[in-house]
Amino acid sequence: MLLQVWEILGTFVFCVSGALAAREKEMDWFGMFVLALLTGTGGGLLRSVLIGDIPPLILTNPLFFGVAAAGTLVALAGAEHWQRMRRAVSVLDAFGLGLFTVTGMRIAQAHGLPWWSCLALGVISATFGGLLRDVLRNEIPLVLRKEIYATACIIGGLALLGMDLLGWHEGVVLGVTTLIIVTIRLLAIRYAIHQSG
Amino acid sequence: MLLQVWEILGTFVFCVSGALAAREKEMDWFGMFVLALLTGTGGGLLRSVLIGDIPPLILTNPLFFGVAAAGTLVALAGAEHWQRMRRAVSVLDAFGLGLFTVTGMRIAQAHGLPWWSCLALGVISATFGGLLRDVLRNEIPLVLRKEIYATACIIGGLALLGMDLLGWHEGVVLGVTTLIIVTIRLLAIRYAIHQSG
Amino acid sequence: MLLQVWEILGTFVFCVSGALAAREKEMDWFGMFVLALLTGTGGGLLRSVLIGDIPPLILTNPLFFGVAAAGTLVALAGAEHWQRMRRAVSVLDAFGLGLFTVTGMRIAQAHGLPWWSCLALGVISATFGGLLRDVLRNEIPLVLRKEIYATACIIGGLALLGMDLLGWHEGVVLGVTTLIIVTIRLLAIRYAIHQSG
Repeated sequence: MLLQVWEILGTFVFCVSGALAAREKEMDWFGMFVLALLTGTGGGLLRSVLIGDIPPLILTNPLFFGVAAAGTLVALAGAEHWQRMRRAVSVLDAFGLGLFTVTGMRIAQAHGLPWWSCLALGVISATFGGLLRDVLRNEIPLVLRKEIYATACIIGGLALLGMDLLGWHEGVVLGVTTLIIVTIRLLAIRYAIHQSG
Repeated sequence: MLLQVWEILGTFVFCVSGALAAREKEMDWFGMFVLALLTGTGGGLLRSVLIGDIPPLILTNPLFFGVAAAGTLVALAGAEHWQRMRRAVSVLDAFGLGLFTVTGMRIAQAHGLPWWSCLALGVISATFGGLLRDVLRNEIPLVLRKEIYATACIIGGLALLGMDLLGWHEGVVLGVTTLIIVTIRLLAIRYAIHQSG
Repeated sequence: MLLQVWEILGTFVFCVSGALAAREKEMDWFGMFVLALLTGTGGGLLRSVLIGDIPPLILTNPLFFGVAAAGTLVALAGAEHWQRMRRAVSVLDAFGLGLFTVTGMRIAQAHGLPWWSCLALGVISATFGGLLRDVLRNEIPLVLRKEIYATACIIGGLALLGMDLLGWHEGVVLGVTTLIIVTIRLLAIRYAIHQSG
């Protein structure tokens, strides 16, 4: 239950950022919706294909299309305030990164994969949507140029594995891991260490 | 049976358009063949991966490689007449769009997916090949910039779902849906509404 | 056993070439590692997805991540000597091409696919990693512009199928096929027939 709320929050945040990124390239409403959907669900989609969760959740649960549609509308409505939204999007993006690393790792663990593979699937879940977004915008993916994204996911993911070993309570593990990743990302933005914005 | 003929016609049309698009970027014969194959079968390939139809038809039925080879040869032979072929390709492309939306939706329905998911897979089947073609040509995909492609597929797809509810005859449903999509595309070209050519 | 050694050798070679290609685009360590991993394992990954080998080997066998990490380190260490390394990389690349065509075809055959499909999966195994590398570097894939890559794989693959029919010994078939592909590639480089370097 907690995991689902985590997943939907992360999806919405990434959808908004995808739709805004599409708008910047003068795509139409369909391009905005597709980039919203892929940025928000691309990581989960690749994870589903790689671990055999077929058909993937986005084809069986209408929630994800709904969230992408909502994200597109928010991006359309808010685009005039883009300069002011920029900071908000960066913060939201940091949360998406944290939330998706956590849910990706938990799902991989539920499939009995080894720890390093779960860590990899956490990073994939958190970053592949943004990678797809950038490929479709015809740009070199940001995640491959600004190491702080992946570094944040990996540090958070290692912390999650450590807390699992110590047998900590689920809510604490999810919360602390997300907090670590968000904090690293926000500090990176604050001190402009390979800043994206 | 009718569906198979639909699928092969659509594949051939898209293969020719893919091979011509490769030639425009000065790719060699292999690049032309790969773009023909991917433009023609990319939509069906992604659909197969997403719904678990593995191995996909293009690896078990030699027909698709044959059609891609034929499409490449037609593109090589016809390239001198490219300016005159342009209009023909646009029209063929519109037919491919209609044919693939229909077959994609029918296959998704046969897998018991919900209606909105079938609609999405129809749009994916019709547009993902062209999206791959554009990514490999290092361009922002046309389908994300010219909404009329997706709009035509969605309107046609909704009509198909409506005719299904009314219990219309299969041949009529396939024919009318394809006709709707082709008509919208051709009108868009005629009146240059976000025209591609 | 022989096949596994073949696969790992090919992976290492491609990983180094992927990491160097990432460095050229000023990607950071994570970008280098991802391009190393994808160039080295992208072909096998797509093959796994297409034939239903899920989860793919790179998520269950830590060797591949280790090889990608080693390839990244070699690329980082050797980058100063890049001009001198260039020739070495071209030669290694030719070996990767040969090794992956062979292993890709054998795995496809083990899945009972028809001969033309095995040939296609051999070419995909050998070339898809490099294609992904180029898409992520925001370039038109080399393999689509320099036909000699695919031509070498196809000629070698046909030779493998012929030797299989004649019932030759496994070691000989693997060796001769790899040798044919490597020779064609090296001759192409030597005489600058669509040379990449």
